[in-house]
Amino acid sequence: MALIVKKFGGSSVANNEKLLNVAKIIEKDYKAGNDVIVVVSAQGDTTDELLEKAYSINPKGPSKRELDMLVSAGEQMSISLLAMTIETLGLPVVSLLGWQAGFTTDSNYSIARIRKIDPERIRAELAKKNIVIVAGFQGLNKYDDITTLGRGGSDTSAVAIASVLKADLCQIYTDVDGVYTADPRIVKTAKKMNEITYDEMLELATLGAQVLNNRSVEMAKKYGIELEVLSSLTPEVKGTIVKEVVGMEKMLIRGVAKDSNVSRISIVGLQDQPGVAFKVFERLAQAKVNVDIILQSVGRDGTKDITFTVTADQCNTAIESIKKLEGTLNYKKLVHDESVCKVSIVGTGMQTHPGVAAKMFEALSDADINIQTISTSEIKISVLVDTKQGERALNVVHDAFML
Amino acid sequence: MALIVKKFGGSSVANNEKLLNVAKIIEKDYKAGNDVIVVVSAQGDTTDELLEKAYSINPKGPSKRELDMLVSAGEQMSISLLAMTIETLGLPVVSLLGWQAGFTTDSNYSIARIRKIDPERIRAELAKKNIVIVAGFQGLNKYDDITTLGRGGSDTSAVAIASVLKADLCQIYTDVDGVYTADPRIVKTAKKMNEITYDEMLELATLGAQVLNNRSVEMAKKYGIELEVLSSLTPEVKGTIVKEVVGMEKMLIRGVAKDSNVSRISIVGLQDQPGVAFKVFERLAQAKVNVDIILQSVGRDGTKDITFTVTADQCNTAIESIKKLEGTLNYKKLVHDESVCKVSIVGTGMQTHPGVAAKMFEALSDADINIQTISTSEIKISVLVDTKQGERALNVVHDAFML
Repeated sequence: MALIVKKFGGSSVANNEKLLNVAKIIEKDYKAGNDVIVVVSAQGDTTDELLEKAYSINPKGPSKRELDMLVSAGEQMSISLLAMTIETLGLPVVSLLGWQAGFTTDSNYSIARIRKIDPERIRAELAKKNIVIVAGFQGLNKYDDITTLGRGGSDTSAVAIASVLKADLCQIYTDVDGVYTADPRIVKTAKKMNEITYDEMLELATLGAQVLNNRSVEMAKKYGIELEVLSSLTPEVKGTIVKEVVGMEKMLIRGVAKDSNVSRISIVGLQDQPGVAFKVFERLAQAKVNVDIILQSVGRDGTKDITFTVTADQCNTAIESIKKLEGTLNYKKLVHDESVCKVSIVGTGMQTHPGVAAKMFEALSDADINIQTISTSEIKISVLVDTKQGERALNVVHDAFML
Repeated sequence: MALIVKKFGGSSVANNEKLLNVAKIIEKDYKAGNDVIVVVSAQGDTTDELLEKAYSINPKGPSKRELDMLVSAGEQMSISLLAMTIETLGLPVVSLLGWQAGFTTDSNYSIARIRKIDPERIRAELAKKNIVIVAGFQGLNKYDDITTLGRGGSDTSAVAIASVLKADLCQIYTDVDGVYTADPRIVKTAKKMNEITYDEMLELATLGAQVLNNRSVEMAKKYGIELEVLSSLTPEVKGTIVKEVVGMEKMLIRGVAKDSNVSRISIVGLQDQPGVAFKVFERLAQAKVNVDIILQSVGRDGTKDITFTVTADQCNTAIESIKKLEGTLNYKKLVHDESVCKVSIVGTGMQTHPGVAAKMFEALSDADINIQTISTSEIKISVLVDTKQGERALNVVHDAFML
């Protein structure tokens, strides 16, 4: 007998038929004698539809407290509908909202972080032999107000429960049957991996592989929870295990990813003085802009350039923030480019193989793809290329390493 | 400065335009310096749509706990959407779920009764000068599970808050501008009343006038809360005040109502012995069948008949319950008629005017409408007539008294 946490995303529970499919996956584990906790997202496009409704009332954006109140109704509906479906199989089941399941968060509405989980209620329901369905993505702050964890928050909810209850297994069901070396919809030769490390998964998640929310991977790494990524459509197919150390199947690089949600901003002709970069990034941090790649040119003629990337939706905020520094920051011009995309390779193996970067650049060069910016870390190399060349770049890089 | 509780039904908040209309009604009271608490139902047909979804999963009916979890999401959406609408007017506002507003109920899911309201949170929000939007129809039981109060429960929520917080005014907004002497859609000559007593309103609500939920009227009577029934479409028009004693406008009867949701059941040829009626109605009570009119014939030849009415949806349950008594209860036959409707007149004046019943029967007789059954109480007289003659019966009785 094991304690299993299973998480199903919105597309896995989008309609009655899919709910029944999920119910049967749960039934199998339950009937095998396991304790089963299921974390569910809102059905299909419910969250987006609710947000759309909210913005139709207030196009400038309603308060985040009320937005969280609204969208959290999405999981409330999905957990009860899934529970009703499980009832039709004759199994004991109970659905719990985030706060009923003991989730306490901070008060950053819409991007709240889990502070604590009090597992008393879940434990009591498991002791009664109930299948426990938990609303992902939501919790309660110290004012007794509902908060949400932000996009992909249900993954985080699942991992958090798994770590607090020391689950034997934490399965994240999606609509792909594991983690691939590249997005199989774009790269036909992409292969499914049996295992991947947390760090590699983190880089891939951040880079736009969109299989797992990266906060959930960080949490899994921190608490040593092994995750399995698998498909709710083919639950019998073994998925990809995400864990600390992977076995002998030493691939030089683990995966290739493309992220189109990128804007590049350059501040050209900054005075080459200490503290300039600090001013820029302090200001961006205050405006809550997440900066990804940062490049600073070598000083020349007493000036230097700073280039950085942000997600496309934060581009305007970033530019406005920099403009507000006028007077304290002198520069020649501020330029931005939204037609860029980031192509990256990830792999813990690469740091001991000096030829990796060269191989990547060669592949792109052979395909006549211009590299606009390069950024490297211990386990990844990213390049910015023109958006129009993104898919082709992904394919040539993938093929250079994977064949 | 006064404390005002305002309740808006689902049709009053069905879309963005109507939400804005409601927000402006609230704005007016708030800007006049009042503390404003607003109780809201789910938008439009949301509750019905959610129920339909649930029954599409389990046609036999899901567990009531999960149903309450599901449908309570309806008010969660409407309160946040109304709060967002009020935000666009630049006013401070906060939405509260039933449990956040302090509603504790018993555990009769889907028909829960309010046990207690802890008004601490509402008071704190009012002290911060917030407009407080409360989800009607819902609460929390002692297991920390969400319950709902049953149809029309939002009226009850509003009256309960008004009584706990000793509100100066409790306004129930509907899509009619007050309580009429008959349903104005059926009786063209119906008149709006300025005032009506709790008891008269209770009889009218029970009889199918469908203006106010009768549990809310009972509660208002118990705690002496004056209610105003008015329209959200013409909020400037004074509505009908429901209170303990009404003024001098002494009408002989207060209103006429028709209820088509009626089935008549007769047990014919029962043994004329003590305890027979007890057996029948004890059995019906166990099956949770609400019996309305009861008539027992005078015994003859050692047998008697019992006739009673139930709501149409409980007819089958009632018949099955009686059939289960076979062996302990002897009777010749069990008959039922679903093509009946109940037409009633209500008025505290009638008990001191012996001619009232005669006048009603005369009007029906003149119109060639056959009276199947008669039932009287201190403040009402009801007759059962053929469904096909219901509307005409309502009109002739109304005109006999109202002209």
